[in-house]
Amino acid sequence: MALKLEPGSRLVVATHNPGKARELAEILERRFELVAAGDLGLAEPEETETTFVGNALLKARAAADASGLIALADDSGLSVAALDGAPGIYSARWAGPGKDFAMAMRKVEERLEEVGAEDLAAWFTSALAVAWPNGPAVVVEGRVDGTLSFPPRGDRGFGYDPIFTPQGLSQTFGEMDPAAKDAISHRARAFAKLKAALL
Amino acid sequence: MALKLEPGSRLVVATHNPGKARELAEILERRFELVAAGDLGLAEPEETETTFVGNALLKARAAADASGLIALADDSGLSVAALDGAPGIYSARWAGPGKDFAMAMRKVEERLEEVGAEDLAAWFTSALAVAWPNGPAVVVEGRVDGTLSFPPRGDRGFGYDPIFTPQGLSQTFGEMDPAAKDAISHRARAFAKLKAALL
Repeated sequence: MALKLEPGSRLVVATHNPGKARELAEILERRFELVAAGDLGLAEPEETETTFVGNALLKARAAADASGLIALADDSGLSVAALDGAPGIYSARWAGPGKDFAMAMRKVEERLEEVGAEDLAAWFTSALAVAWPNGPAVVVEGRVDGTLSFPPRGDRGFGYDPIFTPQGLSQTFGEMDPAAKDAISHRARAFAKLKAALL
Repeated sequence: MALKLEPGSRLVVATHNPGKARELAEILERRFELVAAGDLGLAEPEETETTFVGNALLKARAAADASGLIALADDSGLSVAALDGAPGIYSARWAGPGKDFAMAMRKVEERLEEVGAEDLAAWFTSALAVAWPNGPAVVVEGRVDGTLSFPPRGDRGFGYDPIFTPQGLSQTFGEMDPAAKDAISHRARAFAKLKAALL
């Protein structure tokens, strides 16, 4: 077998996050027939790894082996320099079971106040993994650097987007047009690497 | 870039274990110019992941990014069914800083006695990762099933080889001719997958 993704292939997308699924579908440009892991009745495995790529790989592997289809998974998060990279792989968990990112963004602001940090540098990371059933897997990582600002601005995007302004721009990810965000985001950069490797 | 390994490529091998390096060199059949990570002065990163593939990936990524060369890393271990998969990713750590596998094998025997296990089923797993500098990575996993026996037998191989007899055979990995072991081992199976994917 060769590590190629043929256009039109059926791909399981191992994300249970509707915002991410929408972005993945847009970035994949209808090249593939996407099937959601949830629609196949696949459970979400616990994210036990300590890195973004490790967790993406774990999710893609579980979905591929359980479904018999090639699977794509993503793991991503916000890392804050002054918080030693937190929330990082725990970005989703800071929002709790109710996925309350307003609360998670307040938590970031509070932690920055606690440590008295003036440095607002932060970056988003997106790791993508494509796994073949009982076969190999390919992983890539993309990153976008930027600055945090409070209060949150904009109701587009999802997660921590309203407090993150990418380097050289003035709008937060939460304010940006989805197409403009997709052109420069961590996820888009990871996809560019994945396409270069597999298409 | 395409995910291909051209024969003759220079590859950093991110292992500091001489036994593994020997096996990797034999299995790679002199297809590549191998450079040891230690010879490039690269430090061994801490193995913080919870899976074999996660740790192999972490080591390959670190070596590739630090050296600017394509890097190959391996993570492997023995999993004992009656011990819920232990020592697993902690296989090397059970041998301590002095790499005392005689002690590690006694520890396996003692744990089996403690739990009163009659089931001696076990398997070796080998995860391999190939990482391109600041680029994608490919991971594969190979496994060989077998049975434990005590006391250890044979002084070939390394690690837990003297207590592991592969399914359908009578010699332990420690007694087998290296070429015979290489034909069926977890590492050979992982390499077969890697070759199919990349060569």
